[in-house]
Amino acid sequence: MSKTIRVTVWGEFRHEKKNPKVAALYPQGMHETIADFLRPNTDFTVRTAWLDQPEHGLTDAILADTDVLIWWGHMAHGDVQDAIVAKVKTRVLEGMGLIALHSAHYAKIFKALLGTTCSLKWREATDKERLWNINPAHPITQGIGEYFEIPAEEMYGEPFGIPEPDQLIFISWFTGGEVFRSGATWQRGNGRIFYFRPGHETYPTYHQKEVQMVITNAVRWARATVCIPDVCPNAKPLEPLPDDTEAAARPTIGHK
Amino acid sequence: MSKTIRVTVWGEFRHEKKNPKVAALYPQGMHETIADFLRPNTDFTVRTAWLDQPEHGLTDAILADTDVLIWWGHMAHGDVQDAIVAKVKTRVLEGMGLIALHSAHYAKIFKALLGTTCSLKWREATDKERLWNINPAHPITQGIGEYFEIPAEEMYGEPFGIPEPDQLIFISWFTGGEVFRSGATWQRGNGRIFYFRPGHETYPTYHQKEVQMVITNAVRWARATVCIPDVCPNAKPLEPLPDDTEAAARPTIGHK
Amino acid sequence: MSKTIRVTVWGEFRHEKKNPKVAALYPQGMHETIADFLRPNTDFTVRTAWLDQPEHGLTDAILADTDVLIWWGHMAHGDVQDAIVAKVKTRVLEGMGLIALHSAHYAKIFKALLGTTCSLKWREATDKERLWNINPAHPITQGIGEYFEIPAEEMYGEPFGIPEPDQLIFISWFTGGEVFRSGATWQRGNGRIFYFRPGHETYPTYHQKEVQMVITNAVRWARATVCIPDVCPNAKPLEPLPDDTEAAARPTIGHK
Amino acid sequence: MSKTIRVTVWGEFRHEKKNPKVAALYPQGMHETIADFLRPNTDFTVRTAWLDQPEHGLTDAILADTDVLIWWGHMAHGDVQDAIVAKVKTRVLEGMGLIALHSAHYAKIFKALLGTTCSLKWREATDKERLWNINPAHPITQGIGEYFEIPAEEMYGEPFGIPEPDQLIFISWFTGGEVFRSGATWQRGNGRIFYFRPGHETYPTYHQKEVQMVITNAVRWARATVCIPDVCPNAKPLEPLPDDTEAAARPTIGHK
Repeated sequence: MSKTIRVTVWGEFRHEKKNPKVAALYPQGMHETIADFLRPNTDFTVRTAWLDQPEHGLTDAILADTDVLIWWGHMAHGDVQDAIVAKVKTRVLEGMGLIALHSAHYAKIFKALLGTTCSLKWREATDKERLWNINPAHPITQGIGEYFEIPAEEMYGEPFGIPEPDQLIFISWFTGGEVFRSGATWQRGNGRIFYFRPGHETYPTYHQKEVQMVITNAVRWARATVCIPDVCPNAKPLEPLPDDTEAAARPTIGHK
Repeated sequence: MSKTIRVTVWGEFRHEKKNPKVAALYPQGMHETIADFLRPNTDFTVRTAWLDQPEHGLTDAILADTDVLIWWGHMAHGDVQDAIVAKVKTRVLEGMGLIALHSAHYAKIFKALLGTTCSLKWREATDKERLWNINPAHPITQGIGEYFEIPAEEMYGEPFGIPEPDQLIFISWFTGGEVFRSGATWQRGNGRIFYFRPGHETYPTYHQKEVQMVITNAVRWARATVCIPDVCPNAKPLEPLPDDTEAAARPTIGHK
Repeated sequence: MSKTIRVTVWGEFRHEKKNPKVAALYPQGMHETIADFLRPNTDFTVRTAWLDQPEHGLTDAILADTDVLIWWGHMAHGDVQDAIVAKVKTRVLEGMGLIALHSAHYAKIFKALLGTTCSLKWREATDKERLWNINPAHPITQGIGEYFEIPAEEMYGEPFGIPEPDQLIFISWFTGGEVFRSGATWQRGNGRIFYFRPGHETYPTYHQKEVQMVITNAVRWARATVCIPDVCPNAKPLEPLPDDTEAAARPTIGHK
Repeated sequence: MSKTIRVTVWGEFRHEKKNPKVAALYPQGMHETIADFLRPNTDFTVRTAWLDQPEHGLTDAILADTDVLIWWGHMAHGDVQDAIVAKVKTRVLEGMGLIALHSAHYAKIFKALLGTTCSLKWREATDKERLWNINPAHPITQGIGEYFEIPAEEMYGEPFGIPEPDQLIFISWFTGGEVFRSGATWQRGNGRIFYFRPGHETYPTYHQKEVQMVITNAVRWARATVCIPDVCPNAKPLEPLPDDTEAAARPTIGHK
């Protein structure tokens, strides 16, 4: 594998152009803010990509050169081409890591990998969010204490339509009375997936130190360590079998 | 919910028409053989459906009237319409049980719910399969002893491209030297999913008592107990929030 | 197995004798209150047992006659004899269900089965608890809506020192800002275990309808369906092995 | 944490003194053979300890100086003092990694952490073992191909009395017709646990390259990254609570 961890930060990059409040918080786009706090890590090589680039910036060459893909999307999930989603899915199953942020709970790629609705409750208001660290030994929570707070964020509430996570990392408490599984991991194929809840576009969440620390840790945790293409092979036996009088008639090509 | 468990057995029903060997084993089709051994259970109501019916026999009315869907497909996965697959997936996430048999490891519905390649090794030959019961307390293994054998079956071998199961039920030993996770469960949304490996069309597997017992047990285990439609609601707070000077500008419709 | 579900409700039964506040809430003891709301279920046979009985009321005969054991203890975990704990553990691993309530997070039997610290944060104060239903398709949550509230309860907060649950059922929100995994299941051996957080002795929690409904559902879910004694057998091969010139020298008794 | 990974290899070291066949295979003891193949890794610091040392070689100082403990025991599990087991368990829950080898399935420390019987089938004969790699993306399987074989080993067969693993890594095929979950991981508290089946004392298993590679990988995977002592604190609220007229009477010491 690559010596450095090759990170591609993908952003929808539309709110920033339409909503002055978002533009004020993230003048170069949310993806650039995320890339900026990752770049000082000398073990990372960081690039960005966004929706309105050709192939959404996710060409075969770039996907092949990516160990961890970070995904933020919200209003335009439907504009992401199914063919690109299929390629990204293939890469995750081969081994590429995926970090899905906030409203990416409804990104096509996240739903395709998890297979469920990924629905939730939500509210934009004045909630405070407190994220409790449920797994202090996990690589993703290193340097994070027992909890951290985000002064104002969109609320996401349970039930969250996800498969039981492999590891539950954070549970959020919201002022308005809800709770949420805010950090969770799954392995799918050879790829590691981390969902991290915070990051609504109208709040300065990605400028907050603890949020940056979690995402940085998650990049290291999710890095691809293998790239194993999908096969479904006809396999010769490793031990002797009884005679097969019908051997000539057996199919040797098939599962597809 | 319904007083009886409403079972729909779906079969591809093409091998039986093309291959005399399959027709000899399953003269009315594999789906009818499966339905036949389920019908004596007075707590079940059993119907069948197949690929070449209109809407593949899976109309909205039939899906709404189904608690457990059993799926066998092999050579014609690609002929199943995506729109029908989407409807079946919605029903599973709402609560309907799904039992995927043998080559349904590659059925669109199974792959869509699990999100992975679902690939494996395979060989049609003279292997014997011995299924070891890994979870003797599980409802699906009641009446099955420590193991049972199928005298001849297609081999499926690891690695099997599935997410880590919620519960591993059976592991198979094959004469040729392979192993396989032959029985496994997952919950997806509100639906229970059971994958059961045996059942290649050229072997009399579905006539075997233990195989029938497992599938019968699985129907009871997988039965729908709820039907919860997907929502992603804007939620009012349950506890007082700080004043929100921007309340009028907040979106209340959105996640989609 | 038994036609009815044989439930033994075990209570420490000491607070009720020492603290008038507890005695006022639970005049016959907390175990009798729990037994009382279970008894109207005609599919249950319910008895009680408590710490200061001989063998803590858990004789071999009673354990053998129990499908589900409900356990409430708090101030006197240390007074439970290790030999009785060992017998209860054996029964759970054989197939008996265990429902551990509230402060039973620190019961010897719960810690012995889970293997972890089972520690948590706690506070007796004026918190309200809101339990969010994370798994609305689970048998334990049937009849419970999206959430229910307990007007006043002791707070338990994360991190909770448990192994990742098989299924997470409830997450609690507390007024004071904490969250907690309040309902969770594990299978250990052939036994099903459910931990349910509510039930501090100085609050009328076990008189609340939703709490009663959850415990009633959990009894049905946890009921023993098998009783499989522990063995570690020397096993003869099922397939031919190469000649073994050392066969006479091989041990056939051993693992212990 | 420590710059190098501090490994303590613990061996029972009794078979080697009593059985000439074992002594011929492992002249310095099995623990020394294991330590020997680990030592060339410059990121490891390796020591050994054994049963007949004072405190079984596991003093407080040594445990505090250990990131990963490797454990091999067989005939003398009962001679390991409970007080030492309790200390080792505390260290694992604080964050120390544990690699349990072969017959350590019945080691007190392994059973105490998993909470189950850990029983299995077994046979000393002429079986070949083929370990299938079920999780090729896992750190523990790096460099291992699809499978590897051990020409002769003791057979261990299912059912294996363990909790459902967090991650299943290897499944073994045995000549005699059995299968076994030969590599599996669990997190308990802050510690990572890996069970690895091969290594009966009368076979040269720990001289085999693939076995050495798996154990070496497992050391890196299991290394302690935190050391978090157990606490069960009385916690002040982080958000305002309603007035508490009974505050003075509330306990603030308690859970134990």
